[in-house]
Amino acid sequence: MYRIDLNSDLGESFGRYTIGMDEKIIPLITSANVACGYHAADPVVMSKTVRRAKEAGIQIGAHPGFPDLMGFGRRNLNVTPEEAKAYVLYQLGALDAFCKAEGIKLQHVKPHGALYNMAAKDYVLSKSICEAIYEFDKNLIVLALSGGELARAAADMGLRTALEVFADRGYEEDGTLVDRRKEGAMITDEEEAIKRVIRMVKEKKVTAVTGKDISIQADSVCVHGDGEKALAFVEKIRQAFQNENIQIVPIDEIV
Amino acid sequence: MYRIDLNSDLGESFGRYTIGMDEKIIPLITSANVACGYHAADPVVMSKTVRRAKEAGIQIGAHPGFPDLMGFGRRNLNVTPEEAKAYVLYQLGALDAFCKAEGIKLQHVKPHGALYNMAAKDYVLSKSICEAIYEFDKNLIVLALSGGELARAAADMGLRTALEVFADRGYEEDGTLVDRRKEGAMITDEEEAIKRVIRMVKEKKVTAVTGKDISIQADSVCVHGDGEKALAFVEKIRQAFQNENIQIVPIDEIV
Amino acid sequence: MYRIDLNSDLGESFGRYTIGMDEKIIPLITSANVACGYHAADPVVMSKTVRRAKEAGIQIGAHPGFPDLMGFGRRNLNVTPEEAKAYVLYQLGALDAFCKAEGIKLQHVKPHGALYNMAAKDYVLSKSICEAIYEFDKNLIVLALSGGELARAAADMGLRTALEVFADRGYEEDGTLVDRRKEGAMITDEEEAIKRVIRMVKEKKVTAVTGKDISIQADSVCVHGDGEKALAFVEKIRQAFQNENIQIVPIDEIV
Amino acid sequence: MYRIDLNSDLGESFGRYTIGMDEKIIPLITSANVACGYHAADPVVMSKTVRRAKEAGIQIGAHPGFPDLMGFGRRNLNVTPEEAKAYVLYQLGALDAFCKAEGIKLQHVKPHGALYNMAAKDYVLSKSICEAIYEFDKNLIVLALSGGELARAAADMGLRTALEVFADRGYEEDGTLVDRRKEGAMITDEEEAIKRVIRMVKEKKVTAVTGKDISIQADSVCVHGDGEKALAFVEKIRQAFQNENIQIVPIDEIV
Repeated sequence: MYRIDLNSDLGESFGRYTIGMDEKIIPLITSANVACGYHAADPVVMSKTVRRAKEAGIQIGAHPGFPDLMGFGRRNLNVTPEEAKAYVLYQLGALDAFCKAEGIKLQHVKPHGALYNMAAKDYVLSKSICEAIYEFDKNLIVLALSGGELARAAADMGLRTALEVFADRGYEEDGTLVDRRKEGAMITDEEEAIKRVIRMVKEKKVTAVTGKDISIQADSVCVHGDGEKALAFVEKIRQAFQNENIQIVPIDEIV
Repeated sequence: MYRIDLNSDLGESFGRYTIGMDEKIIPLITSANVACGYHAADPVVMSKTVRRAKEAGIQIGAHPGFPDLMGFGRRNLNVTPEEAKAYVLYQLGALDAFCKAEGIKLQHVKPHGALYNMAAKDYVLSKSICEAIYEFDKNLIVLALSGGELARAAADMGLRTALEVFADRGYEEDGTLVDRRKEGAMITDEEEAIKRVIRMVKEKKVTAVTGKDISIQADSVCVHGDGEKALAFVEKIRQAFQNENIQIVPIDEIV
Repeated sequence: MYRIDLNSDLGESFGRYTIGMDEKIIPLITSANVACGYHAADPVVMSKTVRRAKEAGIQIGAHPGFPDLMGFGRRNLNVTPEEAKAYVLYQLGALDAFCKAEGIKLQHVKPHGALYNMAAKDYVLSKSICEAIYEFDKNLIVLALSGGELARAAADMGLRTALEVFADRGYEEDGTLVDRRKEGAMITDEEEAIKRVIRMVKEKKVTAVTGKDISIQADSVCVHGDGEKALAFVEKIRQAFQNENIQIVPIDEIV
Repeated sequence: MYRIDLNSDLGESFGRYTIGMDEKIIPLITSANVACGYHAADPVVMSKTVRRAKEAGIQIGAHPGFPDLMGFGRRNLNVTPEEAKAYVLYQLGALDAFCKAEGIKLQHVKPHGALYNMAAKDYVLSKSICEAIYEFDKNLIVLALSGGELARAAADMGLRTALEVFADRGYEEDGTLVDRRKEGAMITDEEEAIKRVIRMVKEKKVTAVTGKDISIQADSVCVHGDGEKALAFVEKIRQAFQNENIQIVPIDEIV
């Protein structure tokens, strides 16, 4: 039996500002990456998000980011490994407090935005992130880009690691994502995107932008809930997985 | 045998900004109130402060405050009970992450600055703070102003409560502190201040600003490490306690 | 000829967060209160908002608030007069920089949210706000609640003052707004609201919540662009003003 | 007659946090770079700093930085040119408001920390900074690293440009500073540092880390007031300039 997790970023609202359609994406996913108050979210939003995810029975992960609300954590910030580790610990603990208040457990950690992208290419940064996770709770799953440095650092540290793939992104031969500024970065045809992700799950292969087939491990697919079109695409993926007898379960049941 | 705890605010530095003489006050106290990143401190500072307190063998408490770094959490902010609860949960969890990483346990929670002062007079606000503490960890001690509303709310909720007194502050007949703008707010004579606090511990009494003796419960004395004079005063208090056979121990051994 | 200004809060988005329907309300108003980066807005948003207002030919005012993005500047913050003055100066200058870059002039200043509400009842706070305005540019118009302390302080300082009224709010006999928690706070019937505001303009009178008629000065009506219903109401007000031969012009042409 | 300006960073305190010994460095310099509330300073600090500089009769410049108080603006942040321009405009205006309130004029702009370092190597970023300055006030002087891209962009835009040198830093043959992690980055011998800077002023030459003499333009020397040793070094530089008949004047009298 094939298994796959669907993860999405949630709880990114802040104060009077609302982002995302959390109530609509929640029923469609198995793992939520919840913002922790640095790049997005405030404590009231976090409290509501955790409660909502719990009620829907989906798993919760921490989604720590850079302390850059103005840039939504999407801008590279040149932090030291010591800073990165402390920032991740801080955010892990902050989110976990709301889980404790609800009597549930954190499932995973997935860095957000620029922290995710930088970690995927930087082993030292990834190691500092993994140290924070390990010291906080060595049973947490690290949700990392398939083929990236974070996945490598997490495995080296003996942490459970779930590998994330993207249905709508092109891959280089080395397994990294094609840079968004290059041709082939985005898979715009939805049918093709779905076929690709099914092949990743079943055959553990994907065709790189060069045309060559490469190996890939898919434990979780990242989906989005920031618009009606995105939501419809998630519905299609779910349907396709069902048709293909691929079970949609949280990563905790996969890795 | 009489027992008393000495508590002080620590870890209030931020980024390149340094406040306090943490290394000098740590050897003199038994409980540290550690800032949690809202009114003061950042994750790197928190990490260092927790490690330092652990090494010195003193107990650690969370010192949550308002999200007002510019005002150091000293300005009243008109938050809702829901906001107050979420802010305290957030900060509790954030600090606790560094304790977990060091393999130690939080001992207590003491609200900071304006949150402390507002809670002392507002039962509803106090209740929301205590709910956060209770839901996070019902074994945490609430360190509250002797005679204030936070102490009452904590007791009502069945939380362990330690009562804090001030050596250098005047008291009203109802047990509240004399407003800083009024005469009699500060006890400037050090010898008198020490005599008063010893009487609070041994006789459970203090002379109010009106001249009348009132009952008071003293589990912990708040001391400061923000200058050589303050440090010298703490030394004097310690010496006086020793001379009076009052044992200086963390509140965990008192309440 | 009767004249009235229509003002609305604009430019309240922040980073990736969007609030309001600025493009839709801009053609309907004559004066924009533009957020200055403390309670809302960031520099990129401010730049776009000023450019957009300029292109539409409407007047721009600064809308300074408390440094409380998490609370959208709507929570009372107990600042000193010195702090209030400095915060207003800072925000005035910051917004004015974008006006200078566009070659236009600021028309007015209207405090936002809790700062507006606190100032309306606190002469000392109002005076500190007016000092900031006076020292920055003594030709700026202060847009203040009709009958409030800010209006009084501005007049005392010799600043041009425009008085703001609300179509949808009830008034006490002393000219202050009925507290939102009390009955009669909101005028929910749109026709009645419009009749009331027309009477304020033409007769300088409004019926207080007690039933008694009181005097009121209306230079500007505050309207909102945060939803289709709000926008439709503004259209109705505009139509009614036109029918009544009340000219809609910026406050600069009124006071 | 040779002329040189001495500039230093001032007004970097924040809320209850104090950095620097502003009162002690002010009498020793001719131009102050004043923090604008992003990487350091708050409005109250800015108000005091501007007043203090005015009273001492020294010139004031804006010292805009990244919105990264936690990192004191010293960490590279990957902003777009549009963001950089807007951030500089915002901070220029904010500081200028305090100058207007004091009836004085801004003399110059010098980017802070990581923004300064990134701009020195990035023409596109430098251009966006210069556009902000030009649109705000085309008479402002840009204080830029001698030989860097900001100087080039400012000159290209027709802005007055003052070139900054460092007494205590080594130079590469291309005129850039030796990376702090490399040997030869710091000139630790004070006498040698002073000789070097005097030669820069009089002969417009400095010996690069390779041993080769290169051309350099020195309009201003950056000095520091963050400790007794730093202050003593500034006194020594001043004395040496006096002995060499080099007049110490603000850059406004040089470029």
